[in-house]
Amino acid sequence: MKDSIIVLSGGMDSVTLLHSEKERIALAVTFDYGSNHNAREIECAAWQCRQLGVPHVVIPLAFMKEFFSSSLLAGADAVPEAGYAEENMKSTVVPFRNGIMLSIACGLAENDGLAKVLIANHGGDHAVYPDCRPEFVKAMGDAMRAGTYNGVEIHAPFTHLTKGEIAKLGRELGVDYSHTYSCYKGGEKPCGKCATCIERAEALRFAGLE
Amino acid sequence: MKDSIIVLSGGMDSVTLLHSEKERIALAVTFDYGSNHNAREIECAAWQCRQLGVPHVVIPLAFMKEFFSSSLLAGADAVPEAGYAEENMKSTVVPFRNGIMLSIACGLAENDGLAKVLIANHGGDHAVYPDCRPEFVKAMGDAMRAGTYNGVEIHAPFTHLTKGEIAKLGRELGVDYSHTYSCYKGGEKPCGKCATCIERAEALRFAGLE
Repeated sequence: MKDSIIVLSGGMDSVTLLHSEKERIALAVTFDYGSNHNAREIECAAWQCRQLGVPHVVIPLAFMKEFFSSSLLAGADAVPEAGYAEENMKSTVVPFRNGIMLSIACGLAENDGLAKVLIANHGGDHAVYPDCRPEFVKAMGDAMRAGTYNGVEIHAPFTHLTKGEIAKLGRELGVDYSHTYSCYKGGEKPCGKCATCIERAEALRFAGLE
Repeated sequence: MKDSIIVLSGGMDSVTLLHSEKERIALAVTFDYGSNHNAREIECAAWQCRQLGVPHVVIPLAFMKEFFSSSLLAGADAVPEAGYAEENMKSTVVPFRNGIMLSIACGLAENDGLAKVLIANHGGDHAVYPDCRPEFVKAMGDAMRAGTYNGVEIHAPFTHLTKGEIAKLGRELGVDYSHTYSCYKGGEKPCGKCATCIERAEALRFAGLE
């Protein structure tokens, strides 16, 4: 039964979720919020949806680049080269991004009579991104349920998985990770030095997918 | 101390809140989501902010008109003429609108180091609009606190007031309601027949401001 909408960035995590929940996904939504890597992410998201025959829409949120400060919105040079050291990674935070994306996806779900919003936040993001943590997801789910006629729910099955565990699941599902994009600098070739490049490489290695 | 951002539509309720909390408001944000009455609301919101010297930004959310079904987004003729009969008014619901607006305002607050988001939802809206009810506001506040570094809070002081009580407060504060706009049809002159026109007239009468 197609009862869900997925927030799909085009990165490893959400693409894995797209594949693992494809039977129930009626619509995938990608947000174009002006990040350095948005255009490449969108291309990957669209490619994966075409493979699976999932309807896909892209929603522009131009105000985020205009009003929000984040190295992720400020060009490749602004992104720090290093691992996930907390202070370092904080510069890449886009304020309340998951809250904004979930709210809009919730509105779309309510509009289309869909019961669930799927999101691929995971355990590795908890330290740096407050809007990836279990307590945020729980409260946001309560707000969505209370704020809609249909009682729209969040389904976030990766909340307690590591990125490596997600990659293992993707390997089992046959996900083609060459059509996902992660690098925060957004270049044609991933830089291999920013935190997401390093984290991605570690996850693929963990899953035996180097 | 200027520690707050207000979600300001330009209608009676949010304009009253703007005046009652003006000492703490660092920024007012109005959303242009393509409703029939948006342009006139924005004009009123901007006028009120100029009077009080409050910085004001307008954020376009064009996707709402494109993707969401609501008589409020579909032209004047789509809006029913009648009182707040529940089934009738349901056609004017824009799915999870307050959730979307609060999320974006929360991101702006987090970005600008502001502690609170002010919103003027009130008791008269609870029957029809799920995202105006106390349980929604409570859960959304929990999500915003959990999803931000600064623990951004919602302040919704009108949640248990009637629109008439808000108008009384506005009268005490000297609010000029001729520079607010309510009619859901969005014409140059309010239609006087849609639910918001009727509700507005009742509230002003209650406050002795006819």
